[in-house]
Amino acid sequence: MNSQRNSRTSLTKRIHTITVPLGERTYPIVIGEGVLRRAGDLFRKHAIGRTVVVMTDTTVARHHGAVLERSLRTAGHTVHTIALPSGEQQKSLAAAERIYTELLQRGIDRSATIVALGGGVIGDLAGFIAATYQRGLGFVQIPTTLLAQVDSSVGGKVGINHPLAKNMIGAFHQPRFVLIDPSVLRTLPKREMISGMGEVVKYGVILDARFFRFVERSLERAFAHDAAVLTAMIRTSCLLKAYVVATDEKEQHLRAILNFGHTIGHALEHAGRYSALKHGEAILYGMVAEARIALWQGMIDERQVDRLEQLVNRLPLPSLTPLRLRSSALLTTMMKDKKTLSGNIRMPLPGAIGSVQLPSVVERRFIEQAVQHLTVYGA
Amino acid sequence: MNSQRNSRTSLTKRIHTITVPLGERTYPIVIGEGVLRRAGDLFRKHAIGRTVVVMTDTTVARHHGAVLERSLRTAGHTVHTIALPSGEQQKSLAAAERIYTELLQRGIDRSATIVALGGGVIGDLAGFIAATYQRGLGFVQIPTTLLAQVDSSVGGKVGINHPLAKNMIGAFHQPRFVLIDPSVLRTLPKREMISGMGEVVKYGVILDARFFRFVERSLERAFAHDAAVLTAMIRTSCLLKAYVVATDEKEQHLRAILNFGHTIGHALEHAGRYSALKHGEAILYGMVAEARIALWQGMIDERQVDRLEQLVNRLPLPSLTPLRLRSSALLTTMMKDKKTLSGNIRMPLPGAIGSVQLPSVVERRFIEQAVQHLTVYGA
Repeated sequence: MNSQRNSRTSLTKRIHTITVPLGERTYPIVIGEGVLRRAGDLFRKHAIGRTVVVMTDTTVARHHGAVLERSLRTAGHTVHTIALPSGEQQKSLAAAERIYTELLQRGIDRSATIVALGGGVIGDLAGFIAATYQRGLGFVQIPTTLLAQVDSSVGGKVGINHPLAKNMIGAFHQPRFVLIDPSVLRTLPKREMISGMGEVVKYGVILDARFFRFVERSLERAFAHDAAVLTAMIRTSCLLKAYVVATDEKEQHLRAILNFGHTIGHALEHAGRYSALKHGEAILYGMVAEARIALWQGMIDERQVDRLEQLVNRLPLPSLTPLRLRSSALLTTMMKDKKTLSGNIRMPLPGAIGSVQLPSVVERRFIEQAVQHLTVYGA
Repeated sequence: MNSQRNSRTSLTKRIHTITVPLGERTYPIVIGEGVLRRAGDLFRKHAIGRTVVVMTDTTVARHHGAVLERSLRTAGHTVHTIALPSGEQQKSLAAAERIYTELLQRGIDRSATIVALGGGVIGDLAGFIAATYQRGLGFVQIPTTLLAQVDSSVGGKVGINHPLAKNMIGAFHQPRFVLIDPSVLRTLPKREMISGMGEVVKYGVILDARFFRFVERSLERAFAHDAAVLTAMIRTSCLLKAYVVATDEKEQHLRAILNFGHTIGHALEHAGRYSALKHGEAILYGMVAEARIALWQGMIDERQVDRLEQLVNRLPLPSLTPLRLRSSALLTTMMKDKKTLSGNIRMPLPGAIGSVQLPSVVERRFIEQAVQHLTVYGA
């Protein structure tokens, strides 16, 4: 797939639309600098009903809430805003129950549309509410972190955490559309940008060598908030994800390739109690470790694995030392992974930069060796 | 649609299969005396995976649990049984959370299939778990009450209650198949049989005058557990429901006709705190009241309304006196109904026995009059 760079002016002016083709659930991803201010136009175009419930967190609400609400009210919508505290702990059944109560008390009925304005936590939680309140409401994603813009807002996976394991309670609930405004990233902390870049790098590794090269070349410009570079990164990541999701909406085969880096990555997140590492940071480490497994299994050559590691090393990541990693504990976590079936740990592994294979069972000794390999990062 | 009576012997020997045509979600309803003992064969035929989680309640488990488990184990399945206390209070987020925890602790993964063995409460709760645990597991319905066999096990509506309103949290999650053994009804209390008959009568009123006549003629034989009569009632009700669900899976138009009797019925259930009246009992009262509204609106003639009331009067129902009905309180409940949109109470109303119209807005004075009409039943 292409990831051409146009001149900055032409790209920043343009609105890009990517279609996620899912039959009756087909929807567009609309990407463009400044589109948040014009949200009302898009809501009208998609015949969204009068009542809109914006779910957001207090930080995002402060930066972007007023712009969105103004645009929606101007377009004639009645806007209810539910602003939650920030943080992963909101992805809980207890938080969901409080939101159900609030929706009932406000008299929200099935004609309403839920809008997620925020990062992955808000998107997952608001999407779960939209999937389950009164057996399902319409849903719109407006992601405001790089991670959500390049990955979690597309594809319909929604859910909350169980105290024993993350994302264990959820559904597939596709949005009516996704609205992505790269300009909102200017207020995003640098660590959140790095975390999002983890998924961007992943799309290059698993599906698109040319895009991987573009990321290698453009990393610094992305962190300098070059609009053309960010738009291109978001657009290509969304295009690649849309292709995978359209091929396999419910993750029965191809969609599993999106989990590259995620088996070990999730175990690292868990080891850090979901506070030491951000999701994308854990995925960056996870990809380094899992690429080594591919190497030891003779699937990929060392030069390509090194190239991935060199790109990862340009991104400042927290040391793994505080996590006190033990491979036995990581293995226990991996056994509870949704991808683990009948006690076999499975992961998709790359055959080259730009090409990945469907998940296969990996021997435990390789997983232990891969964790060992992470000691260079303080593990 | 047909509801022919064959001779008792031929019917009881036969297995009836009704297809619910929903594209990739198409599934069969298999109806036959004694099929519970042969569940394992059906699981094999539908390529259900090795791990099966049977969700049931302690009463149903005592009567039918062993028969099902034996058949599944003989067919090579690993069977986990989760038996809950009986009662509507199990349809709660708290109960769902305990079940998620138990599933995680038992290491249940996405390859498992959830089986609901029980009435509507078990079907709704187990279905909600199947819809949301790890973003969705395979699901099989084995309804053991008349109400569940003729109505709630077909169509994929699953969900739990919110303290403020029933069935407010849920999803559409179609089963892989529905297995109905009418012989299990022999252990069902008579009041549960009456409750189920409420939905049977409803199918006659809304869609099939000939079936309504069959119910009028066969009521006593059904309560005497005549296998041929019960099988015919279940089969025709399922056929009619399958037709409606196939036409409108997500209740965007036609499916709303299934709510005849349910707007006032739900309000009566609520007024009785979900203990004074069983669901089908409330629906029987609801149909009587709503048919009067149709009469006052000039949609149906009095002779047909009387015919419905005469059939309902043959079913012993609890007096409404203890509910101390007040139409203002009932109206407040109806305003929170999922069918109520933008403050307008809507309900489907019959034009004749065997023919119903899509929901339309009903004036409050008619609702008040209809509640008044119920005073003959002690209201």
